[in-house]
Parts: sequence; structure tokens; C-alpha cells
Amino acid sequence: MIVVLGLGTAGIYAVRWASGVNRKEDITVVERRAYPTYSPCAIPMAVGGEVNVEDLIHPFPQTRRIKVLLSHEVVEINPSSRDVVVRDMNTGDTETIGYDKLIYALGANPVVPPVPGAREFLGKGVFTVKTVEDAETILRAVKTAKNAVVVGGGAIGVEMAYYLARRGLKTTLVEMLPHLFPRALDPDMAARVEEHLRAAGVDVRTDTALGEVRGDERVVSVMAGGEEMPADIVIMAVGVKPNTSPLEGHVEMDGGYIKVDERMRTSDPHIYAAGDCVLVSHAITGEPTAIQLATTAARQGAVAGINAAGGDAVYTGALGAFVSAFGGYEVAAVGMRGEDAESAVMGRGRGHTRPEWAGGEEIVMKIVADANGRVLGAQAVGRGAGAVINYVSAVIRCGGTLQDLAFGERTYCPEVSELYDVISAASDVALRRLRPKDYRV
Amino acid sequence: MIVVLGLGTAGIYAVRWASGVNRKEDITVVERRAYPTYSPCAIPMAVGGEVNVEDLIHPFPQTRRIKVLLSHEVVEINPSSRDVVVRDMNTGDTETIGYDKLIYALGANPVVPPVPGAREFLGKGVFTVKTVEDAETILRAVKTAKNAVVVGGGAIGVEMAYYLARRGLKTTLVEMLPHLFPRALDPDMAARVEEHLRAAGVDVRTDTALGEVRGDERVVSVMAGGEEMPADIVIMAVGVKPNTSPLEGHVEMDGGYIKVDERMRTSDPHIYAAGDCVLVSHAITGEPTAIQLATTAARQGAVAGINAAGGDAVYTGALGAFVSAFGGYEVAAVGMRGEDAESAVMGRGRGHTRPEWAGGEEIVMKIVADANGRVLGAQAVGRGAGAVINYVSAVIRCGGTLQDLAFGERTYCPEVSELYDVISAASDVALRRLRPKDYRV
Repeated sequence: MIVVLGLGTAGIYAVRWASGVNRKEDITVVERRAYPTYSPCAIPMAVGGEVNVEDLIHPFPQTRRIKVLLSHEVVEINPSSRDVVVRDMNTGDTETIGYDKLIYALGANPVVPPVPGAREFLGKGVFTVKTVEDAETILRAVKTAKNAVVVGGGAIGVEMAYYLARRGLKTTLVEMLPHLFPRALDPDMAARVEEHLRAAGVDVRTDTALGEVRGDERVVSVMAGGEEMPADIVIMAVGVKPNTSPLEGHVEMDGGYIKVDERMRTSDPHIYAAGDCVLVSHAITGEPTAIQLATTAARQGAVAGINAAGGDAVYTGALGAFVSAFGGYEVAAVGMRGEDAESAVMGRGRGHTRPEWAGGEEIVMKIVADANGRVLGAQAVGRGAGAVINYVSAVIRCGGTLQDLAFGERTYCPEVSELYDVISAASDVALRRLRPKDYRV
Repeated sequence: MIVVLGLGTAGIYAVRWASGVNRKEDITVVERRAYPTYSPCAIPMAVGGEVNVEDLIHPFPQTRRIKVLLSHEVVEINPSSRDVVVRDMNTGDTETIGYDKLIYALGANPVVPPVPGAREFLGKGVFTVKTVEDAETILRAVKTAKNAVVVGGGAIGVEMAYYLARRGLKTTLVEMLPHLFPRALDPDMAARVEEHLRAAGVDVRTDTALGEVRGDERVVSVMAGGEEMPADIVIMAVGVKPNTSPLEGHVEMDGGYIKVDERMRTSDPHIYAAGDCVLVSHAITGEPTAIQLATTAARQGAVAGINAAGGDAVYTGALGAFVSAFGGYEVAAVGMRGEDAESAVMGRGRGHTRPEWAGGEEIVMKIVADANGRVLGAQAVGRGAGAVINYVSAVIRCGGTLQDLAFGERTYCPEVSELYDVISAASDVALRRLRPKDYRV
């Protein structure tokens, strides 16, 4: 018996791969939610009216071998007797389930910053962005609200701010650090995103810390950067805290995250962990890294599932390839930033979704490589940025160089691409700086 | 002095790279056209009214070191005295230009099939698709035409047929071989394109040979597959013939194409050649291959330019990555087809431009790998197919495997992509058939 705790992305992929690799083992999934699976990344789109909230929920097929216990929470894990105690949240009944392998995938929860008023007004104008219920609550509040403050300039914060502004709310985006997407973009690239958001009607305030949330029965304003900003809605998108309490004391942790080896195994050989709650190796630096992306969770889940089911899988590390999209504009990045790479060779270039004379839209990218030309990372903004970053991600994963970016064959037809595209432009700049002795075209 | 014959894509890239690598050498370019550069691939879009014909023409910057002789044609090449004789097509004057290195990039011209009437009616209803003048002539003819027959089911033929049908002409597409894109797609994938074209109003006739072109002063009909089809316009898009006559007797040829080594050097060490007129190595099979794509011409031109200018560049071979786009639909492929690969492992899968519940459009792809999982090729159809094929092209170039396709990190945001995308779907099918012992996720 494999027991999977949590049916988020990591859990789904763990089940899918475990059942594919081993067609005999039974699998039981324990999930707090009353509904099977959903798409948390689409909550900003739902708030923007691009999709319906009910469309965020998707079925998860149960089979004779795969049993999903919804509305069940984990009470305790007993590694010595290899069982978990779970509680039916509707009836209160508890049940003990034995396991051969446990896959822990309980993810992370949004953090509410420890400033006065923030927790007090949670649900009364202050919201986090995680569940379908959050989406519904925010949508109800949006109907009558006039002023919104979004705290946190990562993907969720930026997307929420964009869609709230598009709905007509006077929207301010507050980021404590000097620029948006502070973990993923260099300042020069972030500046372009800020410009785009301002043009879309968002009042972007970087270097601005949230000081206090004020209100009466509901939120009325926030203090940020020493200024009082009126707010009927405050969205907290400042990060997450890994949900690890049932495992505490049982396996090794580091900084609140679960430590795993390259097989996604914890310090207890019968317990695997995957997703937002674990610390994995960065594919380039090898440094322990916590990455909260569906994409990395999926692959970690696959590794845990394969290994728990008796197969052999190694996680090659996280590159953190991501895209944030709002209203046709994309912000995407992969690997290391220029700011984090020592003696890096960089190139920035400009291209278009198709030739300018055919009506193409601008896209700008930056490529980061090491002194040998090995590609370390890239950032791109504009429509199509995600696909551009995918290309770089493939090259990085396969150990490629700037020459692979500059000279790789990319499809061209003026209806959908350029012959000399943004990847050519940026990698040529970097290549000129690198001055290679020979070229492999 | 470097002399470049032809300012098509290969010539442009040869000049660009030669002048970048060597900042002292003078470069003279000889070009028959009266206008510098243009975008032949956009002619179907121009015929469709998507872009203006005048927008197809682009400037080419001359500098003190780079001289472009427009309206000049090559009279003869003298390898022994290392010079070329060129004629000013306006004045008739000839001039002899000495070279240290010659870069031959005169491309290829459309073939008119040797059937009765085809050549007789050239310009009188029968057209090829190559120059800006062709686009203008076709656009004039389209205004009064009612029936069009397009001969040839490759990219140019398919795009022309689509746009002629969209302009309201009753359009028939005739392909001699059993399916469209016969060199690039397997039959199962081509069938989807045919279905799409039929839905767009094109009468697709495969396995149908052109027999005769009939008319009076102008074309009236064609005989194809034993049937008479009325036609005011006949587009010939059956392939090209390399333009090599000035080099004949001077360098080694094979099947009408110029033979070059991996440095794009002909059998004469002072003469390089690049583009549609040369035979290069296929990057996977190593077989001599003629590929008429702007993308491969660009890279071959770069190699010729770097080497002619005293640098060191090697062409790694052609993968033939291409996309054909018409009205938002894309047909794309790279590398080997399943039909051409021995004991290949294949996987076909279905995905969407974004999740179906968010309004995504379907995309279907097929992946071809060898028995060790090394990726050999891929084909994709639907919006976004070009970007999907770019990803596979990067993996092939860097020597990647099915696992790199299945487990590579690709950016996800429901506004612009799927978490489990078409590449995941197709590569998982292939991977299940491959049954690897271990996984590198």
C-alpha cells in the first residue's frame, strides 16, 4: 500500500506515475478538500472573469486500486508502525491506514505578514490566494469594492493586480524589495514589467513595506511606505509557508522545509516527499532550493511515485522555469539571474512575435551564460515569452551553450515567427562578448 | 575582397557574419534584383491580404566596406584568375571583380512541371511563387479570377491554396504523392492538415498528377488525375531547381546541387557556397540533403561568411525545422519522420494552447525516437505547433532523449499553456513503449 498525503500537483503526479510503474500496488490518497483537484494558478484569471470559478475544479479518476479520501485530514503519522491516522472531516471519525511507502505532498499555505491588523481582517477584506473558496470570496468582494491593495510583487500578486485593475478597481501593488519578480528577474527586465503594469492602470510601488492594515468591521486602508492607502480589498501574496507539521520530529528538515535526496526520499526510507514543502537541488548551482511551481511539483511527484512503487527515478534538480501571463503579456524566466551568477556573460536582445512589418508585438529577453558559454538562465517579457524560455530551458537541461541558442534551428514563417528572432538577437550579443575561437553553427 | 553572389537569406547572413568576424576585409555583393532584400516566405500572406506587397521589401545597409551591386547579374566565374565578371542589367556594361574568397549563394528557382501547356501559359494564368513581382502579378490576377488550382502540397502550395480559398476563389490543391507535406509529415499527421484545409474550403486532391494545362490566350483549365478542372489561376509550387549554372565545370556537383564540406567550402578552396543551391549533411542521418529553408540558409551563410573572413566555423548539419502557418493554424516538423526511421519508437499525443476549460485550441504532435530513446524528429499541427517543434529541435541539437522531452521544465500558466502539455502527452506514450529501466526526471 502506497499512501499519498495531499492531492495537489505533486500528489496527482505521484499517483499517476506510481500506478503506471506498478500495476499491483494499492494507492490511497488523503485530501482535506471536498473536491478532488483544481487549478490554483488560474485564480487570477477567474477573478478577472476570464474563466468561471467552477471550471477550476477537475475530476480525478478513482479506480479499483486508487482510492481517494476527500474531506479527510491527517491527524498523525507513525513511522515506527508505518501508518497514518486520518480523520473524516464530515463525521469526525478517525481511521488508521498502514503503508509500505508514504508520499508526503501537503504543499504550502499562503503567509499572512505579521503586521498589525493583517490577521484580524483576514476574510474581512484581507484575502490570500490559494483555494477555490478564496477565488469565490474575492469575486464577491470585488463586486462592491473600489480600492484594492495587492501586497507582493511575484506572479500571483502581479496577476491579481492586473485583473483587479482591469475590473475597474483603483489598484496599488506593493512590493517590499526594489523590483517586481525579485527572485526571478534582474532589475532591468523587471523595469519593463513595471512599465507595462503601470500602462495597464496598476499603481506599482516597489521598495515599499506594508506597515499596518486598518479598518473597522472590514478593511478600510493600509499603511505602506508611510502612506495611508484606501483599500476595500487587500490581497496578501507575499509567499508561502510549507505545510509540514504532521512530519515534524519524524524526518530531517531545513529551514522549515523537508529534506529529500535525489530520489525524493526523506531521512525515513519509507517516506517520500514532493512539491512545495520540500527542499530540492537547483539543477545548475546544486544549492538547496525551495521552488513553489506546479511544474517542479509535478516532476518531483513523478520521482516520488516511481520510486515508492519500486521503480528507479532520479530528480535532476529544479530550473524554476516559469511564466506569468496576464492579458496577453507574459513574464518568464528559467535558471539563474545575471545578478546571482558570478562572472557571467550576458546578452539582451529584442524581437517580435512575428516581423514588425507583419504586425508583430515586441518581446525582450536576456540570456545569462558562464565564461565557457554554458547557458545558465534567461528572462523574457512580452507575448510569447513562455515559449522562448521553454527553448532556453531545453538547452540548459541538455547542457547546451550560447552557440546552441544562437545557431539552433527554430521554425520560421512570417505569420508566426521571425527568422532573426529574440533568441538570436540576445545570444548574438552574449556571443560577441564571449568571443569564441570557433563556431558550431 | 570577399565577393558574395546573391543577396538572399544565405547571402545576407554571409555578409553579416563575414563583416562581424573580419572588420578590415571589403565585401562586394552582386544581386540581380533591383531591390535589396525581401521576404519570399510572406508572399502567401500578401496574396491573402495579410500584409502589403511593398512591406515585403526591406533595406540592406551598405557601409564603407560593404558594397551592394543591385540589378547586376553574374556573367562568369573564373576560378583560375579568381575573379567574376558581372553585368549591369540597366546599362549592359560588364565589370570584372577580383576576389580572395567567393561566396556563392544564388539559391534556387521554382520548377515549372514539364506537362503540356505549363510553360506556354506561364504569366498568362500560370504563376510560380518566388519574387515580389510574382506576388504583384498573382494579386492582379486574383481580382477577377474565380477558380484556382494550386499544384504541389508543400508549405508554399498549402499556404497559397488556403489564402486563395479565403479570398473566395474556388480552390483545388493537387498533390501527386499520397499526402500533403510528403517530405516532412507522416501520413497520419498529414491527414489532419488535409481535414483542416478542407474545412477551410480547399478541395484537396492527393495522389493526383497534373497532366496538362489548357487554355486559349490565358489558362482556362487543367487536367489532373484524369479530370478537367476549370482554372483562371494555376499556382506551380512543385519544388525548385538550384541555380548553379555559373559554377558548372568549376566545382564538384551532385544531382544538380553544389557539394560543400562542413565549412561550406566547395571543391575549390576559394569558393564557398550556401543556401538552396547546396547539398549539406543531415544533422541526424549524415546523408547529403538539400533543404530549401530560410533557417538553414541563414546558418549556412553564417558558416560561409565566418570561414571566408578568416574565422573558423563548422556547420553541424540540417535538421529541417520548419513551420507553415495560415490563418492561425500551424504545421511544423523537425528531423526525421517515423516513416524514414528504422525501428523507431513513436508517440502521438494531444494537447492544447492552454487548458480546454480556459478555451484552449487543440494541438497534436508525434515524436520519433530511436531504440535508445534519442530523439530523431517530431511533427505537430495546430496553433503553437512551431513553438512545440522548436523545443524538440533544441533537444535534438543538444543530443537529448525522450526523457528530456517528458521531464524538461516547460513554463506553465493557464492563460498561455498547459501543465501536462502536448509534448508531455506524446513523449509519455513513446516512453511507455521504450520502457526505460530508470528515469531522469
